[in-house]
Amino acid sequence: MGTRGSGRSVTSRALDLLGAFDVGHPTLTLTELAARCAMPLATAHRLVGELEAWRALERTADNRYQIGTRLWEIGLLSPFPRRLREIAMPFMQDLYERSKENIHFAVRDGHDAFYIAKITGHRAVPIISRDGSRLPMHPTGVGKVLLAFASAEFIETYCARPLGRCTRHTIVEAGRLRRELAITRERGYALTVEEMTLGSCSVAVPVLDTDGSVKAALGVVVHSVRRNLARYVPDLRSEAAKIAEVMSEHRGDPYPGFVHDLPEEA
Amino acid sequence: MGTRGSGRSVTSRALDLLGAFDVGHPTLTLTELAARCAMPLATAHRLVGELEAWRALERTADNRYQIGTRLWEIGLLSPFPRRLREIAMPFMQDLYERSKENIHFAVRDGHDAFYIAKITGHRAVPIISRDGSRLPMHPTGVGKVLLAFASAEFIETYCARPLGRCTRHTIVEAGRLRRELAITRERGYALTVEEMTLGSCSVAVPVLDTDGSVKAALGVVVHSVRRNLARYVPDLRSEAAKIAEVMSEHRGDPYPGFVHDLPEEA
Repeated sequence: MGTRGSGRSVTSRALDLLGAFDVGHPTLTLTELAARCAMPLATAHRLVGELEAWRALERTADNRYQIGTRLWEIGLLSPFPRRLREIAMPFMQDLYERSKENIHFAVRDGHDAFYIAKITGHRAVPIISRDGSRLPMHPTGVGKVLLAFASAEFIETYCARPLGRCTRHTIVEAGRLRRELAITRERGYALTVEEMTLGSCSVAVPVLDTDGSVKAALGVVVHSVRRNLARYVPDLRSEAAKIAEVMSEHRGDPYPGFVHDLPEEA
Repeated sequence: MGTRGSGRSVTSRALDLLGAFDVGHPTLTLTELAARCAMPLATAHRLVGELEAWRALERTADNRYQIGTRLWEIGLLSPFPRRLREIAMPFMQDLYERSKENIHFAVRDGHDAFYIAKITGHRAVPIISRDGSRLPMHPTGVGKVLLAFASAEFIETYCARPLGRCTRHTIVEAGRLRRELAITRERGYALTVEEMTLGSCSVAVPVLDTDGSVKAALGVVVHSVRRNLARYVPDLRSEAAKIAEVMSEHRGDPYPGFVHDLPEEA
């Protein structure tokens, strides 16, 4: 049992070092890594050496660590995002060709909008999302539509939590958010106006299963000088329906469902 | 030192379980995992349990294991492929819009063409490459151009190894490959005709640094009924030059260089 205990601890500590990196911290020093994992420096040093030897981590010229290309390659084997991307991206590509704007495909994961795929180009407004991003649900187009079509219980739980402010236009009052979600459900699509980022606004539609449950969201983000966001809705709906149809053909696949639920946050 | 030794071994064995998955083996049973890692079943069982608890692995409904979505998310933080994709993809998107064909961006990693980015759509010919793929260099367009513009020593090493056959059109004789590479260098672009996959052919150009060294390759893969592949060359060259320019602006970044070299294979 001693080996068992120490093995568990070593593996989970090594994984925790990988989990210490995030979008805001793409590179970390050894000291920062040890601090973020609440780990003695000597332990971090030894484990980081092993992760580097296996190329799970890479060291930069200025002696910082970053996630290694080998983990990128292995991560891309993950069937859940890979299958969703294979299904959604050709339809997103068609939307991009017609709009030349940022196209997003996201699912719900815990309380986040989790960006499975993004298509962008030179003419699209620069925004912070990218493949693998997590953003809060209430200020984003894809997030708002995923939230609006979630269960009443989930909406209540979400609205009961503090609603973070991203810009002065973010909806941070629970009552106003509930009304906005009711409008979104009724209208069948979500709108945001500079709620995530000043200068950009978005429109998103649900990707609905045949039983009416929301599986994903498809959205477009444009420069906020563009008016009449609703003009994107017919095209978004048409492509969302095609994505839903291909997804339903794969429903029998022995993969985890299309809505991930994280354990309640620690 | 006892803890040290057992720690090293535990971490590297846990990582080896992740490395057991590949494109041909996206899901594995516990028994298959133990066999591929030459590990006792009990050890594999314990480590897989820890990897699953951390969501580095996911279990399917039919009790197989696969790379978890959490590793996909962490892998996407890897700066080397992320930066290259950010640089190349808007230019690739422009190429896709004009051609509606498969667009590839690849670098050399060891003896492989390593596919950093691919853009495809409904009208492109179906092919096996995808983000994070590795394919041999001699039968692929991007691989052939990366090989043709590599050092003379590298070319000799590559040609001295067995040249795998993918189709009846694959060039598997070293002498013929050397001549083909000389033609490719002289012409400035690579052509393949059903050498990787029957039914598709490709054209690719180098992404050259100011010192003339090859950093990456940009290519298009089309249905083999299309003739006159050379017509794609001016557009590919123009976009490759733009990509090279943006890459050169980032040359001072403290990241590993744009050509990865794996340790010589074990």
